[in-house]
Amino acid sequence: MATATGLLDDLAGIGRDLTGGGYHRLAWERPTLELREWFAAEAGRRGLDVTEDGNGNQLAWWGSGDDALLIGSHLDSVRGGGAFDGPLGVASSLAAVDTLRDAGFTPSRPIVVANFTDEEGARFGVACVGSRLATGVLAPERALSLRDDDGTTLAEAMRAGGADPAAVGPADWLASIGAFVELHVEQGRALIDSGDAVGVASAIWPHGRYRLDLHGQGNHAGTTAMTDRHDPMLTYAAAVLASAAAASETARRATFGRVRVAPGSTNSIPVQVTAWLDARAESEEALAGLVDRILSDTRRAAAGHGTRAELTEESVTSAVTFDPGLRDRLATLLGAPQLPTGAGHDAGILASRVPTAMLFVRNPSGISHAPEEYAEPADCEAGVAALAEVIRELA
Amino acid sequence: MATATGLLDDLAGIGRDLTGGGYHRLAWERPTLELREWFAAEAGRRGLDVTEDGNGNQLAWWGSGDDALLIGSHLDSVRGGGAFDGPLGVASSLAAVDTLRDAGFTPSRPIVVANFTDEEGARFGVACVGSRLATGVLAPERALSLRDDDGTTLAEAMRAGGADPAAVGPADWLASIGAFVELHVEQGRALIDSGDAVGVASAIWPHGRYRLDLHGQGNHAGTTAMTDRHDPMLTYAAAVLASAAAASETARRATFGRVRVAPGSTNSIPVQVTAWLDARAESEEALAGLVDRILSDTRRAAAGHGTRAELTEESVTSAVTFDPGLRDRLATLLGAPQLPTGAGHDAGILASRVPTAMLFVRNPSGISHAPEEYAEPADCEAGVAALAEVIRELA
Repeated sequence: MATATGLLDDLAGIGRDLTGGGYHRLAWERPTLELREWFAAEAGRRGLDVTEDGNGNQLAWWGSGDDALLIGSHLDSVRGGGAFDGPLGVASSLAAVDTLRDAGFTPSRPIVVANFTDEEGARFGVACVGSRLATGVLAPERALSLRDDDGTTLAEAMRAGGADPAAVGPADWLASIGAFVELHVEQGRALIDSGDAVGVASAIWPHGRYRLDLHGQGNHAGTTAMTDRHDPMLTYAAAVLASAAAASETARRATFGRVRVAPGSTNSIPVQVTAWLDARAESEEALAGLVDRILSDTRRAAAGHGTRAELTEESVTSAVTFDPGLRDRLATLLGAPQLPTGAGHDAGILASRVPTAMLFVRNPSGISHAPEEYAEPADCEAGVAALAEVIRELA
Repeated sequence: MATATGLLDDLAGIGRDLTGGGYHRLAWERPTLELREWFAAEAGRRGLDVTEDGNGNQLAWWGSGDDALLIGSHLDSVRGGGAFDGPLGVASSLAAVDTLRDAGFTPSRPIVVANFTDEEGARFGVACVGSRLATGVLAPERALSLRDDDGTTLAEAMRAGGADPAAVGPADWLASIGAFVELHVEQGRALIDSGDAVGVASAIWPHGRYRLDLHGQGNHAGTTAMTDRHDPMLTYAAAVLASAAAASETARRATFGRVRVAPGSTNSIPVQVTAWLDARAESEEALAGLVDRILSDTRRAAAGHGTRAELTEESVTSAVTFDPGLRDRLATLLGAPQLPTGAGHDAGILASRVPTAMLFVRNPSGISHAPEEYAEPADCEAGVAALAEVIRELA
C-alpha cells in the first residue's frame, strides 16, 4: 500500500530546478508530460480506468456510472514552486484508494481521481485552464490563443505535447460527477496556529490578475538629465509600493511577481515597463476598490514622471463559498477547523457546478509556491486518512 | 560620391525591430554580422585594405605604415536603439574619404576607418568590448566568459559568428595609430541649445554598471499576509526611487533599465530580484558617493522588508579628458563648441593610448538609444565636411 509521501518521493526528480531547489512543472512542458505518464501508470497499476478529456484533464475511475465522487488535484507547479502544491492532492487520493481497498471497502458510487491540467497558469497566465475549459467558463478560442513568454500559443503547446487543440472545450464527464473533494497543502499559517493536521476550506477570496502597461520615452541612460526623463521604471516602482501600502492597510493582498522591460538594456532608460498585478480581497467589491486605488496612485505617479499607465484586467475569479452542507458535514466528521483561503483552486472552479469541498493539510513553513513548501509525513498520512474517511462517508 | 545619409539608408533594413521601430543589432548576432559584411564591401569598393583583429574589430586602410589617423565608430546598437548611434560615425568616415579623394587630397599619413565590435555591451553587459580587448584593458579570459541572457558565452557567440575566440586580446594595429577622431551623433541637447551642427567633446564622465541582487522569501501571492512577506520586489521599487532621487539632487545620472525576477510568476512573491544600475557622475569620487548613497538607501529599505541587498560592481569606466591639445585645435579649426558627455565610447577607451578627439553631430530630438534618435541630413553632411576638414588638418 503506497503512502502519499512515498508517491511524492517518486516524483522528486521530475522538473527539478537544480539551482533554486524548487520545481518548474509548467503546462505541456516535458516534466508535466512525464507527470501525466506517471499518473496514468499509477492509476493503471491500481486497475483504475484512465480517461482523458479534450483539455488534457486525466481521470482515473474506480467504478463507472453517474453521481461519481471526484477527488484529486493537479501536478503542475509555478516556476520554482514546491513539491506539495498539487501533487499532494493527487498522491493522497491514490493512497486513499489503496487504504479503502485494503480495508475491503466497496464504494456505493464511482470514485474518480483527477489530475487537472495547468492549474497554476504559470506558463500562459490564466489559472485553472483545465477545469475552466471543462466547465465551460473559459472559451476554447480564448484559451488556445493564450501565449507563453516565448510567444508559443496554448494550441501550439498542446500539439507539441501530443494533444489535439480542436478537442478543447466543455467535458462530458462533468455530468457524471456528484461531488468533488480536493485535498491540498495549506498555503498559509492557520493550521499551524490552530494546531490541526487537517482543515476544511470555508471559502476562496476573489482573485484578479491585471496587466499594467507603463509607457515612457526611451533614452540614453548616460546623457539624459534626470529632469528630461519620462522613465516608466520610476512609475513601476511607485506602483509596487502603492500596491503594497494599499493592501497592507486593508489586510488584503497585492503582488507584483512578474515584470518585463523594453528595451531591457542596462544603459537605456526604458520605453515601456509591463508588469502583472495579482490582487485578492474578501469580496469582489473590496477587490475592485483595492485595484482602483492602486491604479489611481499609479496614475498620480505617472503624471509626475510624464509617463502613461494603463491597467487591463486579464482574469477575475469570483469569490467561492464552498457548499455549506458538505463543508459543515466534513468539518464535523473530521473534527477539523474551517478556514478561508486567498488561493485559487480547481475546486473553486468546479464549485459552481457540483457540491465541492476542500481539505487542507498543515504546512509547517506557512510558505508555498517556493521550495520551502512542506508537509510532515505524519500530517500527509493524516490527510490520506481524512480523505479516506470522507470517501467512506460520501460513497 | 556617397553621402552619410545615403550610406545609412543602405542599412535601414538590417536588424530592424518591426514592432518598436528601432534596431536590435547585438554583438555577434545575425544583423551585426550582416553589417560587418556591408562594411567590408563598402571599404573594398573604395579600394581600402580591410583587416580584422582577433576581437572582431574591422579596420579599412587608406595607405599603410605607422602614425596612422584612425577614424570610424561602431555598427552595433542597444536593444531597440536608433539608426545613428554608431553607424553615423562609420558612414561619415567613408563619406569623408570619398570627399577627400574627390578633391584630389593625398594624405601624408595612413587613414584608417574602424568598425569596433560590441561598443554598446547590450548583449554581454560590458561596453566597448572590442576596443577594451584591443587596448588590453579587458582580459581575454574575462571577456570570453561573459554570458548573454540565454547563457551563451562571448566565446560561443564568436564561434557561432565564425570568429576564433582564441585570437582575442591586445591588437598589433594599435602601435600603428597616431591619433583617433570618432564622429558620433550627439546624445543630449547641448548642440540644440548652442545652435551648432557640430561640436567637439571635452570629456566623458566616469560610468559605472552595478548588479543589485535582492534576496527575499518566495511565497504564494494569494495566501501570504502582507505582514508575513519578505518581498524583494518592494526593495527593488525602493532602490529605483532612491536612485532617481539621489541622482536628481546632484544633477548626476542613475538608471535601472534591466531587471530579472525569480521565479517571475504573477501569483508568486519573488524569491529574488536582480537589477542593473547604470550610474554616471562628473568625477569618480562623485560616482562612488552616488552609488554608496543608493546602496545605503536600498539597504535601509531592505531592513524594513526583511530582505537582503548586495551590490556588485560589474564595470567602472574612469573619467576621460580628451587630449587638450587636439581637442582645442579641432574646436578652433571648426569654430565648434566643446561639450562633456555622460556616454561611453570607444574613443574613451583609446584615449588612454593615443591622442583622441570626438566630434558630435546635432540630434534634434535630444533622444538616443531609442527610435527617435536622429540627425538632419544637412547636419550629417556638415559632420562629414567637419571630419574631412579634420583629416586635412591632421593628415
